[in-house]
Amino acid sequence: MQPFFAQRFAKVEPSFIREILKVAVNPEVISFAGGLPNPDFFPNEELAAASARVLQHRGNGALQYSATEGFAPLREYIAERYFKQHGMRVSPDNILITNGSQQALDLLGKVLVNEGDNLIIEEPGYLGAIQALSVYQPNFQGVALNDDGLDLNELDALLAEPDHARLLYGVTNFQNPTGLSYSRENRQAVAERLIKHNVLMIEDNPYGELRFEGEHLLPIAKLAPDNVVLLGSFSKVVVPSFRLGWMLVPDWLRQKLTIAKQASDLHTNGFVQQVLHGYLQENSLDAHIDRIRTVYGRQKIAMEQALLKHCPGIDFTRPEGGMFLWLKLPQHIDAMALFNLAIKENVAFVPGQPFYVRPDILNTARLSYAGADEATIEEGISRLGRVIRQVL
Amino acid sequence: MQPFFAQRFAKVEPSFIREILKVAVNPEVISFAGGLPNPDFFPNEELAAASARVLQHRGNGALQYSATEGFAPLREYIAERYFKQHGMRVSPDNILITNGSQQALDLLGKVLVNEGDNLIIEEPGYLGAIQALSVYQPNFQGVALNDDGLDLNELDALLAEPDHARLLYGVTNFQNPTGLSYSRENRQAVAERLIKHNVLMIEDNPYGELRFEGEHLLPIAKLAPDNVVLLGSFSKVVVPSFRLGWMLVPDWLRQKLTIAKQASDLHTNGFVQQVLHGYLQENSLDAHIDRIRTVYGRQKIAMEQALLKHCPGIDFTRPEGGMFLWLKLPQHIDAMALFNLAIKENVAFVPGQPFYVRPDILNTARLSYAGADEATIEEGISRLGRVIRQVL
Repeated sequence: MQPFFAQRFAKVEPSFIREILKVAVNPEVISFAGGLPNPDFFPNEELAAASARVLQHRGNGALQYSATEGFAPLREYIAERYFKQHGMRVSPDNILITNGSQQALDLLGKVLVNEGDNLIIEEPGYLGAIQALSVYQPNFQGVALNDDGLDLNELDALLAEPDHARLLYGVTNFQNPTGLSYSRENRQAVAERLIKHNVLMIEDNPYGELRFEGEHLLPIAKLAPDNVVLLGSFSKVVVPSFRLGWMLVPDWLRQKLTIAKQASDLHTNGFVQQVLHGYLQENSLDAHIDRIRTVYGRQKIAMEQALLKHCPGIDFTRPEGGMFLWLKLPQHIDAMALFNLAIKENVAFVPGQPFYVRPDILNTARLSYAGADEATIEEGISRLGRVIRQVL
Repeated sequence: MQPFFAQRFAKVEPSFIREILKVAVNPEVISFAGGLPNPDFFPNEELAAASARVLQHRGNGALQYSATEGFAPLREYIAERYFKQHGMRVSPDNILITNGSQQALDLLGKVLVNEGDNLIIEEPGYLGAIQALSVYQPNFQGVALNDDGLDLNELDALLAEPDHARLLYGVTNFQNPTGLSYSRENRQAVAERLIKHNVLMIEDNPYGELRFEGEHLLPIAKLAPDNVVLLGSFSKVVVPSFRLGWMLVPDWLRQKLTIAKQASDLHTNGFVQQVLHGYLQENSLDAHIDRIRTVYGRQKIAMEQALLKHCPGIDFTRPEGGMFLWLKLPQHIDAMALFNLAIKENVAFVPGQPFYVRPDILNTARLSYAGADEATIEEGISRLGRVIRQVL
């Protein structure tokens, strides 16, 4: 058999991070490379109780084929939570359940992206989004992500072009990879530009609930509801393996996205939707999230302090939530070369280069503080400091 | 906001069957329209026991992010079953777990189909496949499905063209919608043509285990392993809501499909993969399937007898397994008009027209015998007989 592939698949490469993670599995290695939530917070027993209840009381209904849009009570729960948290009046009809937010990205690419279309993305940007959207062969246009959000000058320059992008992707809270967030003013400025230039934003928000400092800010979806698809996920706050995420979509997109979902896999696992909904009925999600963000907040402080102590002079972001911070190394350091040395010292991180669509920036790195306790963070960063001193 | 969509989505329509099913939900209606497995056979208690065991013993491991390819022991189980059933020596490495076989179709379209590529499909063909693959805008070429399998004259004519299709889609056992199967000789003839003409077949096999007459036949994948992606599913034999299917893929396709799966949703729900595997360890799948196919076999006979009694002179297929049979009505009867009359008599079926990519055949209909007991089948077919007599 002579192999053949569609053109769109010539460009798609294996995930760089997955390759990195393979190197970091050695138990001797202290890994800040992963993006995994801390499994100590998975509510095993509560989920076991919810599973038992669903199979006992709803049995056949939870096991049959079900609606493409998702389990209605779970969609209602999500809509109500938007109202409680942000005063957003959202119909459950506009919530579509997906297999994690990764699938939302695939469905949006399917429905919205033609080959060669301009598509604006934060730089550095989330690798999973770059990978999912690359399948549909857009022309990515990077806009720098500054400490307060999107660089408006760069954004305005791109939107001034006659064939400017109709689609913009960004993570507005505690971004992956940088940990940066859009300020209140930046959100307002972005919303105005979306409306003025007829642009749809994919506002990805997997980490927004994990704020350990500062105050919650309104999603851009509240400011420009017709111009934003807001993505959410239970992976970082309850459990990743269930693959439960959602999209809040404007009316004009709803039917096409539902058809795309149906063509892609008919519907998301109905059993775990009911189990998760049962869990949410019997337990306080807020109390659960409080425990997670308290610990992540402590671990972030531990990492900041260790960086100041062991890596003096190295610049890094100060996230107010989420799982990641971002190192800016001296200009002449290639983080990929640093990674190879670091692995020999049994510490791992993710070099920053693959997060850029203009890949000429080599001196950055992503570190996760979510998966290691404070003592391990201190030890791991001291190893990293030794490696950096070797290179300098 | 001014709506915009990718070109590929101009052509994709809501599923015709889902629209039909909405009309058929009235509890007064005896519906032969659905394609749902009989929920009486869902192993609720055994799945509850398996869920409890997984959360008790494997807790965190079952709830964290996991491998894109799927849960290794489940892939091993599937590989061993191919050996036991068909003597196929299959590596678990070549089994990729998907969200039902519907997702396998999406991934294959992503990786293999360029816009305008010829793609051969049985006529009538499975609607879910037409919908999933349509997203990638192939040029569908129908080949008639005869009582013994693909029409080889039509197939040869298409394969004689210089730019002939590289991809062929078919359901070799108890096809949806017709209930027809490829004979041993037809499988051999198709396999020879795949190899000779360098064509990849998507051999979809969701119903193969549900044989209630005759003997199991080898999949074409055994005859031409490098030229076939064989799809399987637990939806029809254990439980649909888990959305667990798989692909058996040739080596040359493995990496690209894995990347496509990762870009689409990272991985399939790891928790239910472990629950299903636990269920399969503690229970006999063969014994479970025996119960299902015994009942489906009785129901099929009841439907055949009722058709002979109430609809004399109407031609229909005689499936040896699966869930569906196919009516060929007199030439001048439009099954869509018949459907509208039938609903008034409280009986539903699926008109055949949407299963054709050359939509000029109006006098066919799909009936499922899986979801109704023998008395209900007798009553429903007697209603259908009255409607047909009205029209004749």
